Order: sequence, then C-alpha cells, then structure tokens
Amino acid sequence: MAGKLYGVGLGPGDPDLMTLRAHRLVSQARVVAYPALAGSDSFARAIAAAAIPAGAREIVMDVPMTVERGPAQAAYDSGAAKIAQALEAGEDVVCLCEGDPFFYGSFMYLHARLADRFEVEVVPGVTSIAACAARAGLPLAARNERLTVLPGPLPAAELRTRIEGAESVAIMKVGRHLTKIRGVIAELGLTDKAIYVERASLPDEVVCPLVDAPEKAPYFSMILLVKGGDPWL
Amino acid sequence: MAGKLYGVGLGPGDPDLMTLRAHRLVSQARVVAYPALAGSDSFARAIAAAAIPAGAREIVMDVPMTVERGPAQAAYDSGAAKIAQALEAGEDVVCLCEGDPFFYGSFMYLHARLADRFEVEVVPGVTSIAACAARAGLPLAARNERLTVLPGPLPAAELRTRIEGAESVAIMKVGRHLTKIRGVIAELGLTDKAIYVERASLPDEVVCPLVDAPEKAPYFSMILLVKGGDPWL
Repeated sequence: MAGKLYGVGLGPGDPDLMTLRAHRLVSQARVVAYPALAGSDSFARAIAAAAIPAGAREIVMDVPMTVERGPAQAAYDSGAAKIAQALEAGEDVVCLCEGDPFFYGSFMYLHARLADRFEVEVVPGVTSIAACAARAGLPLAARNERLTVLPGPLPAAELRTRIEGAESVAIMKVGRHLTKIRGVIAELGLTDKAIYVERASLPDEVVCPLVDAPEKAPYFSMILLVKGGDPWL
Repeated sequence: MAGKLYGVGLGPGDPDLMTLRAHRLVSQARVVAYPALAGSDSFARAIAAAAIPAGAREIVMDVPMTVERGPAQAAYDSGAAKIAQALEAGEDVVCLCEGDPFFYGSFMYLHARLADRFEVEVVPGVTSIAACAARAGLPLAARNERLTVLPGPLPAAELRTRIEGAESVAIMKVGRHLTKIRGVIAELGLTDKAIYVERASLPDEVVCPLVDAPEKAPYFSMILLVKGGDPWL
C-alpha cells in the first residue's frame, strides 16, 4: 500500500507558530522532504528543525532561483520522483513548507506532480501576511474591506492599478524590487500608510515605517498598506 | 503593574490547527474573553474549549449582528471596559479569536479600544482561506499571481470588477449573499473554476464545485476562484 504525502505549513518562522498538527506530523516523520533555494539552507527545515526525529531520512531539493522556469522545474521533477519512490515503497512523506503550502509555497510544485497518483493531505499554516500584520499591530481587513495580495516583481504600472483598487494591500517578496515599489507608493501619496516588515516572528525581524526601511531588502520581506483607519472600526 | 492583553488566533475550527503558542497561552490563561455573536455560542470558545483551564474566568461579549454598527460597538465598548478592569488589576487576558485576529476578526474592535493603554501581543492564526484551499486541494497563488480577498456583502458590480482584476479570488462571508455571488460568477463565465467551502476543517465541512453548493449557505462559508491552472506551475 502506498504511503501518504503531507504538505505541511510551518508558519512564518517562529517554531512556536507551527500548528499542533504540523508539529505532530513532523515529530513522527520517517521521511521529510524540502527545497533549498539557490544553494542556501532550507528555511522550512530551519523552522521544523527541533521537531525532526534524529533518524528521519531527508529528501532535499536544490532549487536554483533563475528567471527561466526550466531549471527549477527540473529540480521539482527530480524531487517529485524521489518522493514518489518513497511513497510507492509504502513510506509516508512529510513535505516541509514555510508559511502556508498553497500560498506562494513551493509545495504547489510537488502537488502538481504527485496529487493525481497519491493520497495527499495539506496542512494549512500561518501565512507571513498574518505574522507581519500581528507584529506591526496593524489590522488588515474588517467588515466589507477588500484585501489584495501582490507579488513585488509585478511591473510598476500593474502594482499601481492594483494598489489603487484595494483598501488593504500586502506586497510580498519585496527583495530587490524595493526601490520600484517605494516609488509607486510615493506617487500614490500613500507612503505614510506603508509599513515595512522583514523576517516577521524571527529574532532578527524588522518592523518599521516604509520611509525608514533599509536600502536592501531580503526576499522574505513585505510591505503592508492599510488605507482605512476608523479607530473605532 | 498592568496585565498583558493577548489576541490569540485559533485557526479555522479544528483545534489541531491552533498554533503551539496559541495552545500554550490558552492552557495557562486565568482570564479569557471572547465574543458570542447574535446570542449563539461562541465559535472561538468552541475551538479552544479543551484547552481552557477549569478555573479560568470568562468575559463574554454578546455582540448583536445588526446592519447598524451602534449596537455592536456598544457591546465591544462594554467588553473592552471589563477587559481593561482585569488588566488594570494586573491580570493577563487572553482574547479568543477564530482564524487570525487581524483578518476580519473581532479582536480588531478590542485592539482599537485598548492598544493605546495596555501592552498587547497578537498571535497570528491560520486563516479560513488557507484552510479552505487546503481542504479543496486548490493552490491559491504562485509566482507573480495576484490574490484578492472580497467580502460577500459587497455590491454585485463591485464584486464583478474585483473578480475581473485578479487571478485568484477568495470570497468570504458568503452566507445569504450566495445567490448574488453565484450570479456574478456565472455572468463572468467562471462557474466551472469556482469551489464552495463551508466550515473548513470541521467534522461537518462541505467542499464542492460551486454548481453543487447548497441553496442556503452559513455565514462561515467561502468561494474560491482560481483562474490559473498550469499543472506544472
């Protein structure tokens, strides 16, 4: 009988923000799988590290971060093949995912390759957006407000249109797009509403007004823009 | 010395989707506070029930669900006053919040009333959106895709414009707006991309194509609409 594939959301970084279910699944895992981006250590593995049993086998996917999608696809093809082999041998496989597996998460690439052949359970996790809002003390959306999530790599004109059409905006994956995004927000006259958050919930997190953001932002950084503000809601 | 106010996200409903931190805070609470909507039992309290210590004091806010905001505001005013009294007496207060406290959560109303006077920690939780996507096996957003979150009570024309402008859409609080929302999605020719989810992660959850949705939807129901679909991502 084939094993079961678990896509386990581990939350934004603080291991204490893992769910009870995620923690239990990782603690009992015999095979774990995770991506390591561009030769660096796996963030997902770091979140779960204290819960991974000593004897667990680890399937690591080295995913290059290139603009072309071919090399990353090949890495996921190869990782999915190794995971499939374990599942076919009757082993359950716990895939470690930072944040939530279906929210800009790498597990989607494995899901697309394996879900039609194996039993899959996705365990949702706390997103980086929720963590950033919590750390910034900034309510995101209430009542009938609209929230839009935008990836930072989008072109400036697209970002501008989408920011105009929403009451609350979370801009993910800011990284090297910080200068462009800052410019769009300034043009819209919204700089004083924008909060910059880097590595939310981790010991080295940064939370500050966008105007005070560092010149260089890491990949795991975000800008929150909340236009509303009735203090009594 | 004043106590600390905790706004604790409990996730979408399955107690196993509470975070380790949420579970610990609730388990050690001496005072818990939560809203009960329109005379019904508190959903937040139900999620946390098994973790609440036997001797904990409970501050219940009976919040009427009226179109006018006055009565609900009065209920939060009164609840905030009771919580403030406990905090001033040096007691920590753990506010129970379904989902995530800052994502359409009632904790925002307490935060607006108390955060300028007391120390507050917000513990982010798994949102109903992440839970619905996980249960539906439906990746929400990848790469540079935009995700928009819309409350179901918005007017049809507004829903239509916002759905057109996003690759992935989550429509929250469907409830009695189901017929209107169904109509908008049908007009846009997107019915076959729409999934209906009710009470995600609970024993009586419903996950089905929108076309098979029941005639009456509860307040805690959602429609997910994912226009993309490259199977290899």
